[in-house]
Amino acid sequence: MPPRPITFMSDFGRRDEFVGVVHGVIALLAPQCRVIDLNHRIPPGDIRSGALMLLRAIQYMPPGVALAVVDPGVGTDRRAIAAETGWGYLVGPDNGLLSPAAALLGGVRRVFSIENPEVILPSVGRTFEGRDRFAPAAALLASGEAEPGQMGPEVDPHTLTPLLLPLSEVSEGQVEGLAWWVDTYGNVQTNISPEDMTEAGLSPGQDLTVRVGLMKYRTTWAAAYADVETGRPLLYIDSAGLMALAVRGGRADEHFTLGLGTSVVIARA
Amino acid sequence: MPPRPITFMSDFGRRDEFVGVVHGVIALLAPQCRVIDLNHRIPPGDIRSGALMLLRAIQYMPPGVALAVVDPGVGTDRRAIAAETGWGYLVGPDNGLLSPAAALLGGVRRVFSIENPEVILPSVGRTFEGRDRFAPAAALLASGEAEPGQMGPEVDPHTLTPLLLPLSEVSEGQVEGLAWWVDTYGNVQTNISPEDMTEAGLSPGQDLTVRVGLMKYRTTWAAAYADVETGRPLLYIDSAGLMALAVRGGRADEHFTLGLGTSVVIARA
Amino acid sequence: MPPRPITFMSDFGRRDEFVGVVHGVIALLAPQCRVIDLNHRIPPGDIRSGALMLLRAIQYMPPGVALAVVDPGVGTDRRAIAAETGWGYLVGPDNGLLSPAAALLGGVRRVFSIENPEVILPSVGRTFEGRDRFAPAAALLASGEAEPGQMGPEVDPHTLTPLLLPLSEVSEGQVEGLAWWVDTYGNVQTNISPEDMTEAGLSPGQDLTVRVGLMKYRTTWAAAYADVETGRPLLYIDSAGLMALAVRGGRADEHFTLGLGTSVVIARA
Repeated sequence: MPPRPITFMSDFGRRDEFVGVVHGVIALLAPQCRVIDLNHRIPPGDIRSGALMLLRAIQYMPPGVALAVVDPGVGTDRRAIAAETGWGYLVGPDNGLLSPAAALLGGVRRVFSIENPEVILPSVGRTFEGRDRFAPAAALLASGEAEPGQMGPEVDPHTLTPLLLPLSEVSEGQVEGLAWWVDTYGNVQTNISPEDMTEAGLSPGQDLTVRVGLMKYRTTWAAAYADVETGRPLLYIDSAGLMALAVRGGRADEHFTLGLGTSVVIARA
Repeated sequence: MPPRPITFMSDFGRRDEFVGVVHGVIALLAPQCRVIDLNHRIPPGDIRSGALMLLRAIQYMPPGVALAVVDPGVGTDRRAIAAETGWGYLVGPDNGLLSPAAALLGGVRRVFSIENPEVILPSVGRTFEGRDRFAPAAALLASGEAEPGQMGPEVDPHTLTPLLLPLSEVSEGQVEGLAWWVDTYGNVQTNISPEDMTEAGLSPGQDLTVRVGLMKYRTTWAAAYADVETGRPLLYIDSAGLMALAVRGGRADEHFTLGLGTSVVIARA
Repeated sequence: MPPRPITFMSDFGRRDEFVGVVHGVIALLAPQCRVIDLNHRIPPGDIRSGALMLLRAIQYMPPGVALAVVDPGVGTDRRAIAAETGWGYLVGPDNGLLSPAAALLGGVRRVFSIENPEVILPSVGRTFEGRDRFAPAAALLASGEAEPGQMGPEVDPHTLTPLLLPLSEVSEGQVEGLAWWVDTYGNVQTNISPEDMTEAGLSPGQDLTVRVGLMKYRTTWAAAYADVETGRPLLYIDSAGLMALAVRGGRADEHFTLGLGTSVVIARA
């Protein structure tokens, strides 16, 4: 099997050498494997934001290994896993981070607990498992140097930690959801799908209201930013296929005073 | 033709997965091509800053493909283009972003509008053309998998959107210009060239005044930071060959209260 | 000799094109060499923080060339050096930045001053030696295109600028040191080693006090974050093998009001 690329995502940030050191360990163990940095600025310890980002991105990444580390439970007895899917291996903590992506990829075939001392770097503490446990596992699987069974015992996929995602609520003329990503331009992605909108009887081109807390805003469901005037808000289907709020030439998070997790109600005007 | 490297620049920032997803699409379509991240922190939508950065950098980047995305008009009918130059292809929106670099590289030979559905990723919206339109075009051109003519119809290079850059104004003993980049150390690059200075009768080693708004500062035209004392300001030819202001061991943007676009007058003391 | 990887560290930040341009120069001169970004957010001009980061990381990076640029003396007559070690070459300014890593790697064998005009990019100024002097040297050494002797004259390793690192002070029941890195999670690394602790008669599991200025805090020496309750502070051996302070689910820098260089006294409770 030829060396396969590694997609690497974490909440390590770029202030420290953590991301670079993980790249170093991979280069030492799997010099032929390309590493693609998906993102390292997941809010620290925010498993849900990490899981959603991996979910949005995974279909655009080359099949191989995804190394994902958002791990507030590092050093506890939470498992470190390598999950086999139709796309390749997902390597990371068993805390729900990998679950939505695994589901999108058709579910996991086999899962292994990474605990074989031979595939773990020796270290004084258990505080940097990205370097000591996850990076070596990802490198050995991507390079083909190790079989997944060499990581440690196989575990029952049904015992994996799920990620509980809040669902939108659809009623006649209204969908209730929440903001679950604010991008760098201030665009706000919700957990509401175009199907939810249709089910509620709402359609493209319609004038709608967006309710955030006690505030109510008029908005149009448009196809592109350019369909509204500069400075005006719009609701649209974003690049991940979900309903999102934007302001042409402005920031929707400020216009609608929305942050991660804020409740949003879209309704007929 | 061997696979060629892709130089990638954008205003995507690093908060989101956008940069990583573009890397993923390129790795899927052109697994042999190296991608070099030039910069992803152009101020959002700031076409001029992006164009100037590409201009400063392009001569140091390996010939191949430059993928540049600063695209406030995404989703409008602005064209997406692949421009052939003596250095390689410039791929990005037709909004002036590519024009100064193209001119430096000797002008464009042929230009193609990227609109052939076969080279564009299918997507629900037109909000992430970096992923859906520009990345595939760059990947196919860099890998040699496609001829530029496969991107779409050839267009007249004379119809490309130019970038209007403010010129400096030279008179006897004085040059008027503006600040057009502030780097991470607080050094301020102007649009004034050493030739402008010579034309105005100003020369290295001379004591000069720098006027910013109503304020006037004494400065020396020095060859290196080390030629002035710590804490003192200097005017020098920067690494891109333009007149710049610095403070040894300090920040010129704060010392001179200068920001992007601020007017600057350099004159004989 | 096959092309070897380049580990690249600097204080360039990501706002500008500096990091990307250095990558470009390396790709031009050494297209076969992989470049691993260790970190580019060393506080500007902070030689000690840069030296400590390189020291912590170097054993995890693949042997080859380390290109390290934290260079407040750029443009002065400080030397630019390539130092040969058992691991490979360390390339950077002779200001102490490379010294701790060189010592960890068993000391330098030979050192060369990079001053041969043939290996330096021509440039109008001496303000961007990362691009003009260090990147070409690193690229030529990593690719094997040049012998180290082609960089310039050999210099006596004993004339290299050392880095003076403050030592911890051990007495009965007490160790005095300082904070020398705060990571992105707010964990604070000190210059105190586990050996210092043992020498002072302090041991794992013990209740200790941490004194910062006039404030005194109770802390436990624990093996992992998970050994204390959420919100509680702990002292532990971090991933680099040094004593560090953390707060489970919180920030130790805020809890203990600690910053880079703050004095810390650990003592028996």
